[in-house]
Amino acid sequence: MSHPHPELGPPPPLPDRTLRIVPLGGLGEIGRNMTVFEYGGKLLIVDCGVLFPEEEQPGIDLILPDFDYIRDRLDDVEALVLTHGHEDHIGAVPFLLRERPDIPLVGSRLTLALLSAKLGEHRIKPELVQVSEGERRSFGQFDCEFFSVNHSIPDALAVGIRTPGGSLLHTGDFKMDQLPLDGRLTDLAGFARFGAEGVDLLLSDSTNAEVPGFVTSERDIAGVIDNVFAKADKRIIVACFASHIHRVQQVLDAAHAHGRKVAFVGRSMVRNMNIARDLGYLSVPGGLLVDVKELDDLPPNEAVLVSTGSQGEPMSALTRMANRDHQIRIEKDDTVVLASSLIPGNENSVNRVINGLTRWGAKVVHKGNALVHVSGHSSAGELLYVLNMVRPRNFMPVHGEWRHLRAHAQLAMLTGVPEKQVVIAEDGVVVDLHKGRARIVGAVPAGYVYVDGTSVGDVTESALKDRRILGEEGFISVIVAVDSQSGKIIGEPEIHTRGSGIDVDAYDEVIPKIQDALEQAAADGITDPAQLRQLVRRGIGRWVNETYRRRPMIVPVVVEI
Amino acid sequence: MSHPHPELGPPPPLPDRTLRIVPLGGLGEIGRNMTVFEYGGKLLIVDCGVLFPEEEQPGIDLILPDFDYIRDRLDDVEALVLTHGHEDHIGAVPFLLRERPDIPLVGSRLTLALLSAKLGEHRIKPELVQVSEGERRSFGQFDCEFFSVNHSIPDALAVGIRTPGGSLLHTGDFKMDQLPLDGRLTDLAGFARFGAEGVDLLLSDSTNAEVPGFVTSERDIAGVIDNVFAKADKRIIVACFASHIHRVQQVLDAAHAHGRKVAFVGRSMVRNMNIARDLGYLSVPGGLLVDVKELDDLPPNEAVLVSTGSQGEPMSALTRMANRDHQIRIEKDDTVVLASSLIPGNENSVNRVINGLTRWGAKVVHKGNALVHVSGHSSAGELLYVLNMVRPRNFMPVHGEWRHLRAHAQLAMLTGVPEKQVVIAEDGVVVDLHKGRARIVGAVPAGYVYVDGTSVGDVTESALKDRRILGEEGFISVIVAVDSQSGKIIGEPEIHTRGSGIDVDAYDEVIPKIQDALEQAAADGITDPAQLRQLVRRGIGRWVNETYRRRPMIVPVVVEI
Repeated sequence: MSHPHPELGPPPPLPDRTLRIVPLGGLGEIGRNMTVFEYGGKLLIVDCGVLFPEEEQPGIDLILPDFDYIRDRLDDVEALVLTHGHEDHIGAVPFLLRERPDIPLVGSRLTLALLSAKLGEHRIKPELVQVSEGERRSFGQFDCEFFSVNHSIPDALAVGIRTPGGSLLHTGDFKMDQLPLDGRLTDLAGFARFGAEGVDLLLSDSTNAEVPGFVTSERDIAGVIDNVFAKADKRIIVACFASHIHRVQQVLDAAHAHGRKVAFVGRSMVRNMNIARDLGYLSVPGGLLVDVKELDDLPPNEAVLVSTGSQGEPMSALTRMANRDHQIRIEKDDTVVLASSLIPGNENSVNRVINGLTRWGAKVVHKGNALVHVSGHSSAGELLYVLNMVRPRNFMPVHGEWRHLRAHAQLAMLTGVPEKQVVIAEDGVVVDLHKGRARIVGAVPAGYVYVDGTSVGDVTESALKDRRILGEEGFISVIVAVDSQSGKIIGEPEIHTRGSGIDVDAYDEVIPKIQDALEQAAADGITDPAQLRQLVRRGIGRWVNETYRRRPMIVPVVVEI
Repeated sequence: MSHPHPELGPPPPLPDRTLRIVPLGGLGEIGRNMTVFEYGGKLLIVDCGVLFPEEEQPGIDLILPDFDYIRDRLDDVEALVLTHGHEDHIGAVPFLLRERPDIPLVGSRLTLALLSAKLGEHRIKPELVQVSEGERRSFGQFDCEFFSVNHSIPDALAVGIRTPGGSLLHTGDFKMDQLPLDGRLTDLAGFARFGAEGVDLLLSDSTNAEVPGFVTSERDIAGVIDNVFAKADKRIIVACFASHIHRVQQVLDAAHAHGRKVAFVGRSMVRNMNIARDLGYLSVPGGLLVDVKELDDLPPNEAVLVSTGSQGEPMSALTRMANRDHQIRIEKDDTVVLASSLIPGNENSVNRVINGLTRWGAKVVHKGNALVHVSGHSSAGELLYVLNMVRPRNFMPVHGEWRHLRAHAQLAMLTGVPEKQVVIAEDGVVVDLHKGRARIVGAVPAGYVYVDGTSVGDVTESALKDRRILGEEGFISVIVAVDSQSGKIIGEPEIHTRGSGIDVDAYDEVIPKIQDALEQAAADGITDPAQLRQLVRRGIGRWVNETYRRRPMIVPVVVEI
C-alpha cells in the first residue's frame, strides 16, 4: 500500500506501452472529480467537476481542478467522458471548454442533456457524443466500454478503458440498489466479464467505504413518504437535490395518490425536472403540476411544494421560508421534509433552517428522524462485491478523503489484492500502469483553482489568508500625508477602521504617539515610505494588542504630497 | 402551548405572590444557560454560562448572556446557584462578578472547585456556599432543595425552589444512567417526593428531547475502550473533554489493566484532572501518570496520551498532531480515540483532524465507528420518567434550540400536562407563575454580548456584519488628497486593497475615471467630503461589480490638506 510522498518530483516522460493515470481532483477530497489517462501521447479525461468551498475558502464560488498539467496538450485530448450529471463531475466542463471548445464530450443521454443546459448558460455549443450502457467505442487508442451503474441520478455510467498499455475499470459514482426504481441495475455481470478478461487496475468510488453493510433501497423511502402524506393535513414542502429525479418521482407519486397538486420551486429544480420529463426520466400524471402561484388558491391539504434548499443554502427558498422572508409563509402544522443527505459542513445552516421552521410550528421530517434519504454511494458491503467480481490486479481508491481512500484500500486487501498493488494516491500523484503493475512515479500540480465572480484563478491563497484575517479581526487603516520634499507630516494621521470593534474615538489615545514617532523619524532623516509604514504598523499594532488583545490587519498608508 | 410572541412588550411590575421566571440564556440555543427567578423584589439566579461562537460570529471568543435586565438590581441578588461545572453553566460567572464581586455562589464541592480555579485566573476571590444533594437551604425567601443528578461531569445538582408565589423544579443538565460509575443516581425518588408535595412548574433539560429511547450507560464504553487497548500495539491517544472525569477514569483503568503509562496533554486537562484527583473524584493508581516528556522514553505500546482537542480546535494538541506540528509525532499504526460527542458546527474541523491522522497511518476510533461516547443528556424515554414522577402543574422546556424545546413540550403533553400549561419561551421571555398558572407576560432584552479579546460588549452586530463582508470579499480603499482651500485633487487617487483578489495593476483602468469624476465635482463646486466619498464609492463599486461580479467593501478616504 503506497503512502503519501510529499517529496515526489515531476514524473518521467511516459515510457512505451504504459498507461498513465493522473488524478487532478477527487482524491483526498469529495468533489472536483477529474482523472486524466495518457497513452501513446494522447489523453482521455474522465469527469471534470467542481468542489464546493468550505469556510476555509471564504467568498469563493467554486473550486476547479488545476488544468495546468494538460493546458499545453489540449489538442491531444481524444475525449472527455462524463460518468453522470452531478456538479462534482460535470461542473468544471464550461471552464475547460473555454480553453478548447471542441473537446468531444461523451456521456449518456441524461448526462449530456443536463450538461448542454449548463453549457447553454455559458453560451457554449459543445460537441456531444452520446453513448449507452453496453456500448463499446474507441477514442483514438482508448477503447472504451460503458457499463450501467445505479446512483442518485439516473443514467450513470462506469467506463472500462482498454489500451495497449493495460486495461482499467473506472466505476464513477455508484451504488448497487438491487430493486432500483427504474429497473436499471449496476452491471455487475458486465464487471465480472471484464474482470475475467483481466482488469489491470480498478478505480472505484470510496465515498462510503467506511460505512459497513449495504445501502437501503431508494424504494424503501416510498412507504415513509406515503406515511408523511397520510398524516399531514396542511401543506407539505419537500426539499431535495434538484438532480435527484427518482426522489422527486416518489414525491410526485405520493402526491398523486393523496390527491394533492405539486409545484416546483427553485431555478435548478424547475430546469432539471423539465429536462427529465421531456426525456422520459420523470413520469408526471396529467394535471398534477401547478405553478407556485396557483398553489395559494388550493386548500393547504391539497398543496405540495418540491423545492431546493435542503442544505440550508442562505438564498434558497427553504431558508427564506424558515426566516419568513418568502412568498410561501410557513404556518402551524405544515410539514417540511428534508429528503436529502446532510453534506458535511452544512450542519449549522440546516440546523438553523430546522429551528426556524419549528419555531413557526412546522413539523420537520429529516433523515435524523425518518428514512427519507438513502445514500447514492456503495457502502463497504457493496464495494466488496465489486472487488470480488472484478478481481483487479491493482487497486486505486478514488472519490474520497484520506479516511475513505484508506478504508477502501483495506477492503481491497481483504479481498486479496496484495498490499503492494494497492495504490493510495492523492490529487496530482502520477501512477503508471506498465506490464500489469501500477506504480507511483511522480507528481504534478493539482492545487485549488478558485472561481470568484467572473474570474478564474486570480484569487490566490494569500488573498484568502487576508480574507480570513479580515473576517476574524477587521482592519485599521492609518493614513499619513507626508510632504515629499521635506518629509514632514502634513496634518494629523487619519484612522479608518471596519470590523475591529474598536471605536474611532479610542484612537485619540494612540494618534499622538504615532505622530511623535513620525516626527522623530523625520528628525532622524528617515523618508523611505516603506520604513514609515513599518513604523506606523508597529506602533498601532502593539497598542491594539496590548489594549484589546486583538490582532486586526493594520494597513498603513503614506501619501506623499 | 404558548408560541413565540415577537411583539411582546416589557413585563408589568411583579404582582404580589407571584414568582417570576426570566431566562436570559439557554432557551432557543445550546449554551449560556442563565435563569433569573424573582420573588418579593429579590432575585435568585440559576447558572451563568457562556455560548461558544459559530461561523456567524467571526473572531468572537465567547458569547455572554445580557446582564442588562439585572444590572441595576445586583444588590437584590440573594445567590447564584451553579448546577454543575460545565462552561455553558459557569463560564460567564467571572463577568457577572466584575459587576458585583460578592454575590454568593452556591454549588457542589466539585462545581465550586472548578469555578474557583476559573475565578482565580481572573483574580477574583468569590464568596462560596457549598451544598450537597439532599440539603435544603434558604436564600432570602427562596427556599432551595438540592437533588443529585447524573451528568457527564460528576457532582451535578438539580434545584427545587419553593417561594410563597409557587414552587418549581429546575433539573439543570441531567441524564439517568442507572449504573453510574460513581454510584450517584439522579434522585428520581426525591423528584417524586417533591412532585407529591405539588410542583407548580418544571423546567427540564431539552437537549436530547428529539432522541427517542434511553442513553446507554457510561459503563458500556469500558468494554469498547478495553478492546481498543487490547488490539493496539503502538501508541494510544485519547481525546476527550477536559471536564469528563468519568471518561478519563475509564481510560486510566484501561491503561492500568494493559500495563501502559498515561500523560495528560492540554492546559485544561491537566488542571481539571489535578482538581478531580485532589478531591477524590478521579482515582489514579500509583505510578500510572507520567509527564508528557517522559513518554518519549517509553516503547509506543506502553504509552497513552489523554488530550484535549476532540472538537478539532485549531490550536489544540490533537489538531497540531494531525498537521505534524506538535512534539508528539503521529506514526503508522498509532491509535487515536475521539471519546467525545461531535458538537454541531465542528464537523468540518473534526473531519480534517481525522483525515490528517489517517494520512499518517493512524487508526482513528470515533463515535461513528465505535461506542466511545455516550451523551450527557436524557433522551425522550428518560425525560418522560421525570415528567411522570414530578407531575408538574406547568411545564417549561429549557436548555435547547427551538426544535428541542418543541419536542420536549410534546413529551410533556403526552404525559398529560394540558397544552395551555406548557410554556415555550425563548431567551428574554418573562413568565409569571401565579396561583398555580404559568403565563408569558412580556419580554426583556436578552441579546448576545460578545467577548473579543479583553473587552466585553463593544463588538456590535454592525462590526460583525463588516467582518462577514470583509471575510468574504475583502476591501478596496481609495485615498484621495484634496486641497482644503480650492477643493482640487492633489496628485493621483491611491488604491489599497486586501482580500479582494484584484491585482493593484488592474486599477489603472479605473483610476482615471475616478479622477475625472472628482474633477467634474470640483468644477461643479462640490467640496463636501461626504459627497466626494460617495462619488468614489459608487464609481469604484460599479466598476468592480461589472468587471468582476464581486462586492468588496469600498472604503473611500478623502484627506483634506
